[in-house]
Amino acid sequence: MYRPEIRVVDCTIRDGGLVNDSKFSLETVREVYRCVCASGVDYVELGYRNSKELFSPEEYGPWRFCDEQWLRKATEGVDSGTTKVSIMQDAHKAVAEDILPADESVVEMIRIATYVKDVDKAIHLANNATDKGYDCTINVMAISREGGPFLEEALEQIERETKARAVYVVDSYGALYSEEVHYLVEKYQQHIKTKEVGGHFHNAQQLAFANTIEAIIKGANFVDGTLYGLGRGAGNCPTELLLGFLKNPKFDIRPLLEGIANAILPLREELTWGYHVPFMLMGMLNQHPRDAIKWMGDGQPDNLVEFYRQVTEEYGE
Amino acid sequence: MYRPEIRVVDCTIRDGGLVNDSKFSLETVREVYRCVCASGVDYVELGYRNSKELFSPEEYGPWRFCDEQWLRKATEGVDSGTTKVSIMQDAHKAVAEDILPADESVVEMIRIATYVKDVDKAIHLANNATDKGYDCTINVMAISREGGPFLEEALEQIERETKARAVYVVDSYGALYSEEVHYLVEKYQQHIKTKEVGGHFHNAQQLAFANTIEAIIKGANFVDGTLYGLGRGAGNCPTELLLGFLKNPKFDIRPLLEGIANAILPLREELTWGYHVPFMLMGMLNQHPRDAIKWMGDGQPDNLVEFYRQVTEEYGE
Repeated sequence: MYRPEIRVVDCTIRDGGLVNDSKFSLETVREVYRCVCASGVDYVELGYRNSKELFSPEEYGPWRFCDEQWLRKATEGVDSGTTKVSIMQDAHKAVAEDILPADESVVEMIRIATYVKDVDKAIHLANNATDKGYDCTINVMAISREGGPFLEEALEQIERETKARAVYVVDSYGALYSEEVHYLVEKYQQHIKTKEVGGHFHNAQQLAFANTIEAIIKGANFVDGTLYGLGRGAGNCPTELLLGFLKNPKFDIRPLLEGIANAILPLREELTWGYHVPFMLMGMLNQHPRDAIKWMGDGQPDNLVEFYRQVTEEYGE
Repeated sequence: MYRPEIRVVDCTIRDGGLVNDSKFSLETVREVYRCVCASGVDYVELGYRNSKELFSPEEYGPWRFCDEQWLRKATEGVDSGTTKVSIMQDAHKAVAEDILPADESVVEMIRIATYVKDVDKAIHLANNATDKGYDCTINVMAISREGGPFLEEALEQIERETKARAVYVVDSYGALYSEEVHYLVEKYQQHIKTKEVGGHFHNAQQLAFANTIEAIIKGANFVDGTLYGLGRGAGNCPTELLLGFLKNPKFDIRPLLEGIANAILPLREELTWGYHVPFMLMGMLNQHPRDAIKWMGDGQPDNLVEFYRQVTEEYGE
């Protein structure tokens, strides 16, 4: 019934860090780390390793940079089981020099997030990671706006020039419907022969979990989730839902429920994510959620008609 | 691009009435009616016409019974456009005598909700409705627990013995995944040749909208939604999401946003619906959400581990 090849990446702290400028308390990160490890999920992504030249350490929390000392604080004394630590680098906001040799690091996998236009930078960072001894994936963002010859060229280049383990379809805007997910996974598979296809989906239109399932059905073997869907805008595919679908007996949902209760539900007091009409409209318009995030924080979040007027004026229809 | 045959039923007041014992204010019902009519959605379901012998009018609000006088109060003076009023009867909780001849009623469609075991009662009520001049559908509930010979027999009987316009796949527990939706719609189509297939999906696992899309892809032409997903447990497929997918130019999402802001968002103060782990677990266990609804109202809704312990003890796994 289940497919043992499937790898699950819980990226609660990394993607959730886009909601709070990566300012999670050490306690929260340790609890997320503990519960994800206890659940048997394959990877736990604890943040970005982006450049301190490009993000101010005054403005952003430690999980935007993931210095080794912070990663040690987050993981020390916790039984990691079979779970490996992952971090992400943004192709256009990170540098190769920030990566230590793998045997000096807590990290086992580095994922490179990139737009199609930055693929050369992504390949440079991916090769830096694999040369230094890490597992690596390349995550192609905003895929609902891409397509055509540049995407295919980028996929060919990644296939030819890197040792990445997987190349991801990343629906940054939560705009894709199932038929588009099928189309994209199949397109990737035409070009990516020596690596896995991955899927990371946002929930603007309540389709993150469904699209993850559709990617899996088409053969994607790397899939992402976050606890209770925490993430930018409407958030992500909930990891707890994913485990219920996958049915691999190595996974245990119970620790995730514990972690959600301990570390995630309390965040509802200070952070906004989940289904809200402004986030949904941005997904429907195939746009970045930033306007909706601003609107939700601006004092009249429930004035849906005015928000709709502004965004359809700005982004046409 | 779009399929003009698709009919959308907004059942906010009917399914939402399962959250509040059908005690919506007249103002709320009028605003829902107004905005659904203005949006061009095909049907607006204003409640149940169930028996006052089986539901106490002291305990339940007027939308559990939908007396004609209340329907008139809800609709009078509102421009209905092309939208028709629907009501629902539960096969095991309603009587034929409560239905007037269609030309004396505000109602144009009567939907019969039934379990497979009550199909004879459903057929009796369906024929009562069509004989009296109404459009009619039969909605087969708890379909994730059904299957096998009794379902097929029920479908054959409905096909043979009624003039219903559509027969629905109703995922009462929000338990179905896309491949099961495909299977069920195809199974219905093998037996239902002279009527449409319909789809009504619950959102326990965040799959209500996705499953509605999958049913449409397989050919279902009657689909249900509620404003902002209001409905029992995690709720339903949000009508506003459905219109974005359908792309039929006769639909206008703007009035729905207005209605959500005016009539639905204020209900968040008093009613609970949407994605919550207890609701999700009941969907994952293929169970009625009632235990989760009780748990959510009982003072320690965030004690997820204890809830998980109780329900896995009770429902196995």
